[in-house]
Amino acid sequence: MPRFKLTIEYAGTRYSGWQKQTNARTVQGVLERAIVDGLGDVLVESQGSGRTDAGVHALAQVAHVDLVRAPAPELLRRLVNDALPADVHVIDAAPVSRKFHARHSAVRRSYVYQISRRRSALAKPYVWWVKDWLDLGPMQALAAAFVGRHDFAAYSDDEPGEKSTLVVLDEVAVAEAGPLVLVRVAGSHFLWKMVRRMVGVIAACGAGTLTPTRASEWLVDPESAGGEPARRTAPAAGLFLERVFYDGDRWPEPLRPPVGIR
Amino acid sequence: MPRFKLTIEYAGTRYSGWQKQTNARTVQGVLERAIVDGLGDVLVESQGSGRTDAGVHALAQVAHVDLVRAPAPELLRRLVNDALPADVHVIDAAPVSRKFHARHSAVRRSYVYQISRRRSALAKPYVWWVKDWLDLGPMQALAAAFVGRHDFAAYSDDEPGEKSTLVVLDEVAVAEAGPLVLVRVAGSHFLWKMVRRMVGVIAACGAGTLTPTRASEWLVDPESAGGEPARRTAPAAGLFLERVFYDGDRWPEPLRPPVGIR
Repeated sequence: MPRFKLTIEYAGTRYSGWQKQTNARTVQGVLERAIVDGLGDVLVESQGSGRTDAGVHALAQVAHVDLVRAPAPELLRRLVNDALPADVHVIDAAPVSRKFHARHSAVRRSYVYQISRRRSALAKPYVWWVKDWLDLGPMQALAAAFVGRHDFAAYSDDEPGEKSTLVVLDEVAVAEAGPLVLVRVAGSHFLWKMVRRMVGVIAACGAGTLTPTRASEWLVDPESAGGEPARRTAPAAGLFLERVFYDGDRWPEPLRPPVGIR
Repeated sequence: MPRFKLTIEYAGTRYSGWQKQTNARTVQGVLERAIVDGLGDVLVESQGSGRTDAGVHALAQVAHVDLVRAPAPELLRRLVNDALPADVHVIDAAPVSRKFHARHSAVRRSYVYQISRRRSALAKPYVWWVKDWLDLGPMQALAAAFVGRHDFAAYSDDEPGEKSTLVVLDEVAVAEAGPLVLVRVAGSHFLWKMVRRMVGVIAACGAGTLTPTRASEWLVDPESAGGEPARRTAPAAGLFLERVFYDGDRWPEPLRPPVGIR
């Protein structure tokens, strides 16, 4: 049974996230239907590299799909794209061995978050507009403190005790691009809502309502956070799953805006 | 009675164009309501620099409004923005003399059109995705031929004889920006659908289905076009009213994508 690795770009605005659900429109659900409709094939399984929440976008989500027949990859890509709505797009389709697993084989994931310093009528679905003046210095100081192996319990919305809250981040970067402030976070895996809470707390440091020192203490003593990161969770609209890395993939890439505005 | 010059950015996707209509949602209609609701003032008149069609965007449309009271410009801007939906945004508000007229005082208008060489799930509302391979050479050759004073009758959807079809264009530029091909057109005024027809014909030259020589002949003998420009009208989504120029405004500005994609 042939397995394909699909790389998928989507605007999450109109979707209840990636993961298939019975009573909601999701990216995985729409993709599975397009595969069946577009290829007239039996879809045995589809598996994403991980979930994205409602409203979160992806520049390059990865999924593997098992089909009964084995179409040429470029034909598969074209037929599936023709059956997909305009806000979901298969960028690449490649045959892979059955040892490849979109989730288990992934060694690294990167997210980019777009904060906008100005209101933008055009970029609304793709940014979080922060009215406060943002000082990059404290934002970058906290970003640096996040790098490494830390307990992100204060930044997770997972059920306590469900899984380890120890996470290794190998990159947390804050950079300006025109009116945008970009935050990139990369690591082997992430806890639920972790990136959006990190961004919310980083922005608070930029606005001066929180110090990097205080926020870094929450990595050492999560209880002391008292729910602060949750209250500061950044909105879904600004978040993009940027890339999923597998053995042999090179990184880092330069940090650029997913959707640039003037 | 105080008059203000407003500079307005909007995403045209959800609107039936700029101009107020009785039974349709338009940008001017939404703006007038936000002025009345936000300021609690009587709006005597609002006048845009010109119409934009349904689905067409603006980076900096200009309108003048006459009010009964005279709020501070920055307060006016804030209160109106708070009452506006997220896809319309007053960038600037400035008091002007009653000699200033948004339409009659405008000396130059520029539009930018975004063609995308690739399908993009994120930029769908802001680009025209052209699947054909586009050769910039012929596109730039036709762009150069458009510059100057020509009869654009073949490119106009106005009623014949309604107004002069002689138009002076001082800039027609074609440039690449990543996966985008940008077309900028600037001149004193434009005929209905003229820019979208020019872009459609320019793209056809890039795709090789039309030659710049043939298309330039339609400027000399509009009858010979036989409706070709109309059939090639580029979709509204890719078009942005970039700027409206008044006496003393400087130009040109560098050509950049209104909404950049990777």
